[in-house]
Amino acid sequence: MTDEPDLRHHGDAEVRAAGLVDLAVNVRTGTPPEWLRAHLAATLADLAAYPDQGAARAAVAGRHRRPVEEVLLTSGAAEAFVLLARTLRPRHAVVVHPQFTEPEAALRDAGHTVHRALLHAGNGFRLTADAVPEEADLVVLGNPTNPTSVLHPAAAVAALARPGRTLVVDEAFMDTVPGERETLAGRRDLPGRVVVLRSLTKTWGLAGLRIGYVLGPAGLLGELAAAQPLWPVSTPALAAAVACSAPAALAEAQAAAETVAEHRAHLLKGLTQLPGVRVHGEPLSSFVLVELAGAAGVRERLRSAGFAVRRGDTFPGLGADWLRISVRDPATGDRFLAALAEVIRP
Amino acid sequence: MTDEPDLRHHGDAEVRAAGLVDLAVNVRTGTPPEWLRAHLAATLADLAAYPDQGAARAAVAGRHRRPVEEVLLTSGAAEAFVLLARTLRPRHAVVVHPQFTEPEAALRDAGHTVHRALLHAGNGFRLTADAVPEEADLVVLGNPTNPTSVLHPAAAVAALARPGRTLVVDEAFMDTVPGERETLAGRRDLPGRVVVLRSLTKTWGLAGLRIGYVLGPAGLLGELAAAQPLWPVSTPALAAAVACSAPAALAEAQAAAETVAEHRAHLLKGLTQLPGVRVHGEPLSSFVLVELAGAAGVRERLRSAGFAVRRGDTFPGLGADWLRISVRDPATGDRFLAALAEVIRP
Repeated sequence: MTDEPDLRHHGDAEVRAAGLVDLAVNVRTGTPPEWLRAHLAATLADLAAYPDQGAARAAVAGRHRRPVEEVLLTSGAAEAFVLLARTLRPRHAVVVHPQFTEPEAALRDAGHTVHRALLHAGNGFRLTADAVPEEADLVVLGNPTNPTSVLHPAAAVAALARPGRTLVVDEAFMDTVPGERETLAGRRDLPGRVVVLRSLTKTWGLAGLRIGYVLGPAGLLGELAAAQPLWPVSTPALAAAVACSAPAALAEAQAAAETVAEHRAHLLKGLTQLPGVRVHGEPLSSFVLVELAGAAGVRERLRSAGFAVRRGDTFPGLGADWLRISVRDPATGDRFLAALAEVIRP
Repeated sequence: MTDEPDLRHHGDAEVRAAGLVDLAVNVRTGTPPEWLRAHLAATLADLAAYPDQGAARAAVAGRHRRPVEEVLLTSGAAEAFVLLARTLRPRHAVVVHPQFTEPEAALRDAGHTVHRALLHAGNGFRLTADAVPEEADLVVLGNPTNPTSVLHPAAAVAALARPGRTLVVDEAFMDTVPGERETLAGRRDLPGRVVVLRSLTKTWGLAGLRIGYVLGPAGLLGELAAAQPLWPVSTPALAAAVACSAPAALAEAQAAAETVAEHRAHLLKGLTQLPGVRVHGEPLSSFVLVELAGAAGVRERLRSAGFAVRRGDTFPGLGADWLRISVRDPATGDRFLAALAEVIRP
């Protein structure tokens, strides 16, 4: 065993065992909603035709008020990381950690050297002005950030943009924030190249469908598109992109984000009453990162008690004493809190 | 306009105009069948979970009697071409033409020089022993071949295998041949590396779902997998791979292939009665390639008459005098033949 975290570990591996209550994968429960399932089912009669991206690109472009040339549809955000890693030629790539590990893994796979900029628990994982070195010509960060759940101010993220620099903001969880208030999705005025990644996975429960998109300068998006296989996004996934960009869907996502905020407050209140459990910074997404001594053992005992949570030690900058916990409804949250209180009892 | 064919042209672009009878895209009509649609619809409730490839790999491996390590699931055969182009490092790559253009386009995009081995109409596009130069360490061909519809004997294809050579056989249309009688899908005894690409697109009408697979040596498939994004195949696509590998589905595909053979015979009989229309070789797949003077104009006049056929001039080795025509039911075939007779009338 080495000290280097396993960048290829993902939460879905922690819930394969049947019967565990899932607080490891940050996908909204009860999803996809019935109306969306029915809509997707209706597309199955059209599968004999090759996918046509026209309507989906237009819908996403309209939702973010950008030209269609500034929208690239991808087979989940995961494909976007691979396309960026293959297309960009950074001299000095910086990934801001702790965060989702796939961007760094994709960059390394493509042969790039990756420098890590670590944010610190001591100041709530805040994005400080000196966090990223000036020489970085590629900067990747998440907002809100997985696994810390910290939402950086849009101004702080925008301040990282520079002429000659590509700034990649993974906003896969931005729709868990009411009003998406710190998004850069619509910003076309920043210096350099600003690329925003979005996903329909978490709010809409479409992890199995593979749909995400990239917003950014048309020239760069053209290069990314050239690195995609033919017909990279399936017809049902395209239909989902259209449906989830509609005003009614955006209103539903907003309501879901508000519910997440309430449920998160409930969970946090319970967590802070437990001895030895610490939360750093202000969690503002659909999960909470906690520090507690002996977290690895706690996680195992939670599994025995029927609950899956996400290990924290595979995220650079964290370690053996961290766990990520998905926000669930208060009843589930209370059962989990009771189980956690039991397994950490001295 | 140059003499170089547009390798990125595909038949689906020819049927986007509403109302044309589609003889341009080689997907079986009336697909996906109702039972498959219902099966796929049932998976939509599970989309919140990330895709799990276990069952699908096992099903495909079982269908072809190979270990699961020799099966790689892909987002359509199109992804497989890109993965091969990015992973292989050929010194002398040869693509046997005329054939589907995407393999050559993907190889060129990845920076490889591609040599073309041309088969000739004069001898029915037969794969001769000297067609491929000995120094080729990568050989790509289709069987049965799109657009010629020629089915090469398995022995002739297998004879191309060499130590130190990677032989890629695109069998996207093999399931249109009763008994799949010239397939190399189950062959593990050949020298060098033999890679077989398969698709569920044509027989099952799943062009919109993006599902295909690669059969080959476990080591090479591991390299290809490392070049894929995370979760490259969606949950409905995985469900399709399981369902279409089952004995009942294979029996249905066999019956469909036999029907194709009858309908093709009907179409061929009609075509050979038309003046100036020539068929070279023995068509054995779900489409027919014809040579006729002024095909480009004929194609335009067919569109005016309500029929879309596939232009032939984008295939290396063909030219302005070729059209590819999908096999349809006899009634549709008769209507098409009548329209063709009308537009080529002197």
